[in-house]
Amino acid sequence: MQCIAIDWGSTSFRAYLLNNGRLLETCNTDEGALRLSREEFEATVQKNCGHWFDGTSKLLICGMAGSRNGWHEAPYVSCPATLNDLAEQLVSPEHSLPFSCEIVPGVKTITTSGVPDVMRGEELQIFGAASLGGIAEGVFCLPGTHSKWAQLRQHQIIQFSTYMTGELYTLMRKHSSLANLCNDEDPDPDLFELGLEHARANPALLNQLFTSRAMAVTGYLETRQVSSYLSATIIASEILSASAALPCGALINLVGDPALCQRYQTALAYFDYPSQLYSASEAVLAGMDPLFSETIRV
Amino acid sequence: MQCIAIDWGSTSFRAYLLNNGRLLETCNTDEGALRLSREEFEATVQKNCGHWFDGTSKLLICGMAGSRNGWHEAPYVSCPATLNDLAEQLVSPEHSLPFSCEIVPGVKTITTSGVPDVMRGEELQIFGAASLGGIAEGVFCLPGTHSKWAQLRQHQIIQFSTYMTGELYTLMRKHSSLANLCNDEDPDPDLFELGLEHARANPALLNQLFTSRAMAVTGYLETRQVSSYLSATIIASEILSASAALPCGALINLVGDPALCQRYQTALAYFDYPSQLYSASEAVLAGMDPLFSETIRV
Repeated sequence: MQCIAIDWGSTSFRAYLLNNGRLLETCNTDEGALRLSREEFEATVQKNCGHWFDGTSKLLICGMAGSRNGWHEAPYVSCPATLNDLAEQLVSPEHSLPFSCEIVPGVKTITTSGVPDVMRGEELQIFGAASLGGIAEGVFCLPGTHSKWAQLRQHQIIQFSTYMTGELYTLMRKHSSLANLCNDEDPDPDLFELGLEHARANPALLNQLFTSRAMAVTGYLETRQVSSYLSATIIASEILSASAALPCGALINLVGDPALCQRYQTALAYFDYPSQLYSASEAVLAGMDPLFSETIRV
Repeated sequence: MQCIAIDWGSTSFRAYLLNNGRLLETCNTDEGALRLSREEFEATVQKNCGHWFDGTSKLLICGMAGSRNGWHEAPYVSCPATLNDLAEQLVSPEHSLPFSCEIVPGVKTITTSGVPDVMRGEELQIFGAASLGGIAEGVFCLPGTHSKWAQLRQHQIIQFSTYMTGELYTLMRKHSSLANLCNDEDPDPDLFELGLEHARANPALLNQLFTSRAMAVTGYLETRQVSSYLSATIIASEILSASAALPCGALINLVGDPALCQRYQTALAYFDYPSQLYSASEAVLAGMDPLFSETIRV
């Protein structure tokens, strides 16, 4: 059967044409859900994927297209959440496409102190990576603009936390008083490790952000080196917070962009956490795969 | 004797005309040191203070005018630093003003792990507040774009740390994915306290930044309330980090903008630290006062 999977993020549109689970074609654009009005979603699908449609096509969408300001709201499923729970709560936007079109809900959790957290899209990456790795229980880290750390137990996402890591790094590089000190393009492994070392000695992030600047101003770092140092201190802050409740040496399942995951793998190894890498695009397809089949539906 | 004191920050110019220590006039503009080329400093003094000059005027400048990219570099004095150390290392820029004109150096410190930290301008606020309060030993907190926490012992600044608190708050409000959730103008005391409560339960700042968003997205907070909550979580992160090595209940000497200091006073009280407030402008003048007299000079 021919299927189309769309991972519709805030700032990106990623579509995959599949035939019986085999990837035939891919389409990536920057037409993210935050950039579109409600009326533009169907036309964007039509424009990017119209030539893929045939009589048997079926469309599944995950990510921010299901948010309140997206195409059609798909209310969050509460933790603990299984892939079956998501399958039961698919929603269909109004559309005139010549086949079924459904949006996968996100997942929400509430901490013991009553604070909510949410994800949209990452839940399928977690279930997909778990499927690829044959994992029923484990810790998943999904680095990115809003990094997620999730606990899987008996195939359920039982809790998760989000860290504004990638967004803070971008804000620092583009809009902060560090911006003109962050003009290096190539990662510098020695400076990355120095950042990890300083973060271990002093985990106060607000202080680290300033000392990244002070090190350049006083000549301890060359200007071109600040990005790698800064990246390490922010990633280390995420890892030190997120791993606080984990047993020493727990295996971390890393799901995301391969280059970013490698940076995290280096940082995790520095803090004595081994990790296993999964590509985000392979994981999201593995997560969607059972949703295309009727068998999982109730 | 008639004197002019200028506190020349990154984004602000604050000049004070004094006669035998009595404040006669003030001039505040946004002609901060970061906005001026080297050639514009003298003209800015001339334009804003020219009508104050008489035969006996004497000019002292502290703050970013003494940075490498300012008017004339005044190299940092190393901790432990006394007011006398600053007086010994005043520098004179080239100028054609009809009286003496000197720039006060900043102060630098190096932590035990070899990380540098720097201040310019705040050192005079610390010495000045200490003088106003008759304090030889104590902890000083100077809230702001780059908040400083300093230890004074035997009239010396023995160490200090900087937190990028105010800058992060501004970045979040103006440029982040929270920007459109931060349109409340008036501080909300209940939401400020909720932010403090959540920060105490979970001090992971990168997580707090995201949950400020998640609380609005899921309807736990109204949009207009996010600023107060966010402000509390960022300030709490600074206080929890900076106070980690302090004895319980230590008195904090707060020096800065009165409205911002009141917000810090609320947060400090929540974490059981009593505080004493000093206005930044009064403190900087009290800090400069001895530098105008010849008696302190070596």
